Amino acid sequence: MGTASGLLTVVLLVLLSIVGFCHGGVTSSYVRKAEASPDLPKEAFPPPPGFNAPEQVHITQGDSGGQGVIISWVTPLMWHPNFVTYWAAEGNHKNYKLIASAKITSYKYYTYTSGYIHHATIKGLEYDTKYFYEIGIGECARLFHFRTPPKVGPDVPYTFGIIGDLGQTSNSNETLEHYIANPTAQTMLFVGDLSYADDHPNHDNERWDTWGRFIEKSAAYQPWIWTAGNHELDYAPQLKEYTPFKPYMNRYHVPYRSSQSTSPLWYSIKRASAHIIVLSSYSAYGKYTPQYTWLQKELTRVNRAETPWLIVLLHSPWYNSNNYHYMEGESMRVTFESWFVESKVDIVFAGHVHAYERSERISNVRYNITDGLSTPIKDQSAPIYITIGDGGNVEGIADSFTDPQPSYSAFREASFGHAILAIKNRTHAHYTWHRNQDSNAVAADSLWIYNRHYFPVEELSH
Amino acid sequence: MGTASGLLTVVLLVLLSIVGFCHGGVTSSYVRKAEASPDLPKEAFPPPPGFNAPEQVHITQGDSGGQGVIISWVTPLMWHPNFVTYWAAEGNHKNYKLIASAKITSYKYYTYTSGYIHHATIKGLEYDTKYFYEIGIGECARLFHFRTPPKVGPDVPYTFGIIGDLGQTSNSNETLEHYIANPTAQTMLFVGDLSYADDHPNHDNERWDTWGRFIEKSAAYQPWIWTAGNHELDYAPQLKEYTPFKPYMNRYHVPYRSSQSTSPLWYSIKRASAHIIVLSSYSAYGKYTPQYTWLQKELTRVNRAETPWLIVLLHSPWYNSNNYHYMEGESMRVTFESWFVESKVDIVFAGHVHAYERSERISNVRYNITDGLSTPIKDQSAPIYITIGDGGNVEGIADSFTDPQPSYSAFREASFGHAILAIKNRTHAHYTWHRNQDSNAVAADSLWIYNRHYFPVEELSH
Repeated sequence: MGTASGLLTVVLLVLLSIVGFCHGGVTSSYVRKAEASPDLPKEAFPPPPGFNAPEQVHITQGDSGGQGVIISWVTPLMWHPNFVTYWAAEGNHKNYKLIASAKITSYKYYTYTSGYIHHATIKGLEYDTKYFYEIGIGECARLFHFRTPPKVGPDVPYTFGIIGDLGQTSNSNETLEHYIANPTAQTMLFVGDLSYADDHPNHDNERWDTWGRFIEKSAAYQPWIWTAGNHELDYAPQLKEYTPFKPYMNRYHVPYRSSQSTSPLWYSIKRASAHIIVLSSYSAYGKYTPQYTWLQKELTRVNRAETPWLIVLLHSPWYNSNNYHYMEGESMRVTFESWFVESKVDIVFAGHVHAYERSERISNVRYNITDGLSTPIKDQSAPIYITIGDGGNVEGIADSFTDPQPSYSAFREASFGHAILAIKNRTHAHYTWHRNQDSNAVAADSLWIYNRHYFPVEELSH
Repeated sequence: MGTASGLLTVVLLVLLSIVGFCHGGVTSSYVRKAEASPDLPKEAFPPPPGFNAPEQVHITQGDSGGQGVIISWVTPLMWHPNFVTYWAAEGNHKNYKLIASAKITSYKYYTYTSGYIHHATIKGLEYDTKYFYEIGIGECARLFHFRTPPKVGPDVPYTFGIIGDLGQTSNSNETLEHYIANPTAQTMLFVGDLSYADDHPNHDNERWDTWGRFIEKSAAYQPWIWTAGNHELDYAPQLKEYTPFKPYMNRYHVPYRSSQSTSPLWYSIKRASAHIIVLSSYSAYGKYTPQYTWLQKELTRVNRAETPWLIVLLHSPWYNSNNYHYMEGESMRVTFESWFVESKVDIVFAGHVHAYERSERISNVRYNITDGLSTPIKDQSAPIYITIGDGGNVEGIADSFTDPQPSYSAFREASFGHAILAIKNRTHAHYTWHRNQDSNAVAADSLWIYNRHYFPVEELSH
């Protein structure tokens, strides 16, 4: 009997190790009212006054290291002056005006014809400097400003905002206003699903225009770093629209060539102390494909001595315990997860699920088909996975979590909101998630995140 | 003690079910000499005699049901007559000559410029009829012939050949000659990796031309159904060649529009009693992507009353126990495997691994991340997976199998060869695999395959 019960203990321990580590995640007790949230009427997003005035102004990083910016805007008519005037508001070259010309693109989608979409890439800016820029002339001239990031370096503090799946409802507006009210956020990491135009009949592309007007209040003043989501596909054979990402790629340019990428759907930037890799959940990522071969090389180019923080943005989460979109990220996870663990990625931000969730540091990379080792286990070399598709779009909240909460899930809540990642130095970053119903000072979820390269200590999750 | 050992038994049974069913697969005792096999010299594949003579002639199915054919050929100079003359060799319209004009394409790749690639699509042919076709005029005219398949129907016998990863070595030639010597094979199912031009410096595209000449002896006389493999990508940023599949898609056309596909990389045909679905391992297949949405709809269009046999072709195998390319197919497997089981796919043919392997009928679709149920189990609704990347290309044999042979593997051997699938009626098909070293009458692996819709009985594997 001694042998039998000893064996039993061993077997039970094996089973326990298969089932996984102990479970202690939090499902927030806050329950958001599940109210309908239609898109705001188009009239809520009027174009700026004036004949052929530039609209939908937005900026993003324009080079590898932060001395470049891409300024984009739309005009209804071609003959708008095709340049942007910009000048430093401070420093040695203060008020010295320069001009950058834009490339113009436009596209047709079903019965819609876009305005003229201008993209001006400016490079060689001073670091950590406020710039003004003006688009248009005379009565219609519009003035904006932004601040370049400090020079890339290992201990440069920098604060990112994170929003996903924004859309253009009253909830979307709450999220964005809430974000803008935070004076510390310097750059937006946007994890995909922008306008939700495709939820309208015939993918009504005017909803791309209204969305561009909606986000201008933030995106014209600080860079939004773009990730493509499924709502960017706009693939609609029934409309004879066969080119994936057509509206998105015409409207939102990114500096992909600066990171040796050959597609705007995957690329990287370095900004302050962070190396940020953007991936495409809806492009090919099998071995040998362009995205796969690019990421493989890209990870060798990451220099933690220069950018200690390695952050990945993608749309479809790999670890999600919501019933919505459950396991949709598996296909990409099994392709790339081992690389993320080997490279000690600090954080992966995803969207797609219209709720909030933060994972433990876990990995699931032991599986070899026959060994049954397919349960996520705690792994201090693994990223924290944050799902933040809670921007507040027209499709509403994803309020059905799997039960019980799996052990890989540290915190989850079905509310709309945004997050702030405040990098302090090479070892510490303070992360907070803010639900829309709270005042800005309240963090519904917060965590000191420790850098995986310089301080790979387990975080105190809650 | 009774309780303890009872519990022990239960726990051990659970463990056993996790580990999987009992193992009884065969690793063939035949050991192929691992000899070097360089590509044959270009001179081994001379163009046909005559000024601007049409060359690289090949045909494929040109419509949904088999009354169409795409005839393709290449000429060095544009002013070659841009049409094909064809006529029935039998039946009511015997010897009545018709003309079909071709669309012409050409492409540049690095320093290479292709010849003029002609594609003529003919539709409305009689079923089960021999046709002659002539390309070129005067001295350079070249005459070929093919036979259309019988009308699609549930009990129409038909015999397919299967080859993958062919290349253009002496081994490739042995495989192809061996295949051609089989008088029963009527149509080739080719599972990807055609020319291996990309293994030559700068992806020497003349190797695409020599390959076209090499296969003409079969492909001009019976349709080859094309699948894209990784060697079709020809993605080479170092050469500034950024468009995946450029040479392949210019040279090998398929009737993708006939199956409501929007890309030649995934499509289907019906032929005799088979519905054949071709997928692309190297395109996007995540949820919402074009290939995903197409396959989802396509599976609803399969009508087993019309075409009892549901066959899938793709390049990167989902079940492979060779150390070469081990688990490379996982990402696509986790996306689509449940659909294949629900749809009762009869057989999945893949290439990629340069050896031969046949699986049991198994599935691995229970996994939900937390349940540990990640081991393939026997499943009579699941396809048989056949890996047949053993055409004999320049990269040589994949002679390192995982040890022990996993339970999902029924038979495996590191030899070059081809397979024959002889569909007899709606319930039975006889399948044989032929290694190059044997005479054609010898089957190194053989199996009566039972249709999953009409006769879902377990096959006698060996």
